[in-house]
Amino acid sequence: MTEPLSINRTSLVDRLRELGGIGRTQEGALSRVALSDADRAGRDTVVAWMRDLRMTVEVDAIGNIFGTWGGTDGQGTKPIMVGSHLDTVIDAGIYDGSYGVLAGLAVVETLRDAGLRPGRPITVAAFTNEEGVRYTPDMMGSLVYAGGLALEEALATTGTDGTTLGDELKRIGYAGPLAPGTIQPHAFLELHVEQGPVLEHERLQIGAVEDLQGISWQRVTIQGQANHAGTTPMRLRRDAGYAAARITTFLHDLAEASSGTTVATVGTIRFEPGAINVIPARATLTVDLRDAAEARLQAAESELKEFLVKLNGEVGVTIETERLARFEPVTFDEGLASLISEVAAERGLRARRMTSGAGHDAQMMARIAPSAMIFVPSTGGISHNPQEHTSGEDLAAGANVLLSVVSRLASLGVPA
Amino acid sequence: MTEPLSINRTSLVDRLRELGGIGRTQEGALSRVALSDADRAGRDTVVAWMRDLRMTVEVDAIGNIFGTWGGTDGQGTKPIMVGSHLDTVIDAGIYDGSYGVLAGLAVVETLRDAGLRPGRPITVAAFTNEEGVRYTPDMMGSLVYAGGLALEEALATTGTDGTTLGDELKRIGYAGPLAPGTIQPHAFLELHVEQGPVLEHERLQIGAVEDLQGISWQRVTIQGQANHAGTTPMRLRRDAGYAAARITTFLHDLAEASSGTTVATVGTIRFEPGAINVIPARATLTVDLRDAAEARLQAAESELKEFLVKLNGEVGVTIETERLARFEPVTFDEGLASLISEVAAERGLRARRMTSGAGHDAQMMARIAPSAMIFVPSTGGISHNPQEHTSGEDLAAGANVLLSVVSRLASLGVPA
Repeated sequence: MTEPLSINRTSLVDRLRELGGIGRTQEGALSRVALSDADRAGRDTVVAWMRDLRMTVEVDAIGNIFGTWGGTDGQGTKPIMVGSHLDTVIDAGIYDGSYGVLAGLAVVETLRDAGLRPGRPITVAAFTNEEGVRYTPDMMGSLVYAGGLALEEALATTGTDGTTLGDELKRIGYAGPLAPGTIQPHAFLELHVEQGPVLEHERLQIGAVEDLQGISWQRVTIQGQANHAGTTPMRLRRDAGYAAARITTFLHDLAEASSGTTVATVGTIRFEPGAINVIPARATLTVDLRDAAEARLQAAESELKEFLVKLNGEVGVTIETERLARFEPVTFDEGLASLISEVAAERGLRARRMTSGAGHDAQMMARIAPSAMIFVPSTGGISHNPQEHTSGEDLAAGANVLLSVVSRLASLGVPA
Repeated sequence: MTEPLSINRTSLVDRLRELGGIGRTQEGALSRVALSDADRAGRDTVVAWMRDLRMTVEVDAIGNIFGTWGGTDGQGTKPIMVGSHLDTVIDAGIYDGSYGVLAGLAVVETLRDAGLRPGRPITVAAFTNEEGVRYTPDMMGSLVYAGGLALEEALATTGTDGTTLGDELKRIGYAGPLAPGTIQPHAFLELHVEQGPVLEHERLQIGAVEDLQGISWQRVTIQGQANHAGTTPMRLRRDAGYAAARITTFLHDLAEASSGTTVATVGTIRFEPGAINVIPARATLTVDLRDAAEARLQAAESELKEFLVKLNGEVGVTIETERLARFEPVTFDEGLASLISEVAAERGLRARRMTSGAGHDAQMMARIAPSAMIFVPSTGGISHNPQEHTSGEDLAAGANVLLSVVSRLASLGVPA
């Protein structure tokens, strides 16, 4: 059995570092926010690398960039599309998004340097405004591409700085002529850092991401009655703070009882009036509930709702909930997830099937093509932070799995 | 059996209203903060009323006012002392403190108008700075009087407005010549509004206050680890917010299990970083624990301490506690508490023995004389608020109980 092809680790890491150097503030922080001058500089660099690899570069009307290489089966064959995004949060790490795009270039480079020609074209995509820092919603470029948001509506979006997205897109020279959705992929693959602790904790190198959690965000407001902490007997209290604590432990227990599928977080809380010797009259908290299965997410929402009714009667408070956000889970393509596991095993990499807890462009692309994701470990689970880190070995392992998957799908006959 | 003497309800209520009108802001709020011009005006009015009743007025070096009437047993006989304070919080009600002083005047007036002369003198006291709003500690006048705080230290206290207490006392003309502690009472009685909901809830008119809760205040700081709310499995979390919720429910359950003796309140809480999709790295909360028995208060503190150790191991967080305040409970004089119950029953009033959940001058006076308190209902348990209210009927009932108790103690032979 011949050794499988491998990408050039040094070249991949060098490009990640070079791109990660673009969009630095005077203090040295990386902030390549969507459609800023820094975003333009990053895009220009990646487009130049695509041209160096003799890829055909196309830009669509929402600013998504597509670099396409090869294809021996003639015109009209659907490409294998790989990619992610180039924009970052404020004070970001260098891997989130960029890794998926640059690993795509590494795949093309490796196949080209090996003198191979794919049966299907390979398209590397860089989607606009995945982070949603300056313009909401996030994952906007892939959402528009998949037909989930009208182009006109997206272009009319006002930013946190008062700018209009369409104007900024033109200003940086990335309002392209291609209609979003024109290139319909045969399959879509997104390689990404995990942004969570699971792979590192289990000492694994590859996650074959088979689904993506649905998200339910609610704000819970509890109205009780302020009273003196000394003179009010327990039985006469209507303690909004105690009710908030009961909700917090209830959610934790509910998630723990789910054997790991549901996660629940109370990330913000507020008691009013907020004095050491006054029983809280009012408590506000937020609920972040996630599950990869819509039925289980709905069940968790229902259980919470029932608990609030029960608590209402028990503690004598009035509880109101407000939905802040709701996204259904995404199930990725089973064949692709299996293929990822399979090629990882063939390469002797320690891998597992897993669920993505964060949102990614792949969840939008899953609407129009069989899609899946490959995860590599994030040190300490940290992301959206300058401390975001993945070792060169893990970066290369992920890119090699992507290489093998793309090779299989493009029918290259590359030894696996 | 002859009808017992009763105070003149109209006169008492009129004086409460008149005094309650002194110290109004332009917006109409009552703020007669200690040693302010408003406090001086209130003191001047009460001193004038004492002189109208031909009482001997003395002022001590911390500004406590004593009006003494009668006494047929000759010089040196210890007086029956009744009283409370005249200062208020900011935006206060008219009953807290003032009621206990003005009811004392009503008692003297009633006995005088009935042509009676007490065996023992009756002294009506108005203690300086009970509320502690401008100068800490609260209950300062009675604390100095009882020898719990050196006069010089009290006079040197700097206020929230940068003023020195001794200077302000001189400025308003109430730095008197009497040494604190000079008048040693035979017994001390404080009539006060309950500032809690118990009497109203149980449809009672009189509380014979037999003890006063000890207070334990702590700040609890929990250090966990911030992580992504979606990508971090429940078992890998170190959720400081969840730990805070566990502490809150633990304290509530502990207090409920105490059959009403212990009360526990978490009045303030804070999660950091405080984002909907970030597991709290740090949570801070305050604990207000109270019990009328020192042994039970210590037991509650120990149970909390043990729970924190257990929680530490269970949730993987680090927990630190800081003591913010600690006061031992006060047990009032059993004979006086019984006498209050007895005379209330003789007057056909619905009464119960009870515990004070708030601090009062009587707890300081209990150090130097047999003391007890009489409570009357507070509508809705509300105090320290313009909505503070007690009906004229209840105000009169409380003053009549005080009248009977004082009469018995001063050996007047007033029919009960």
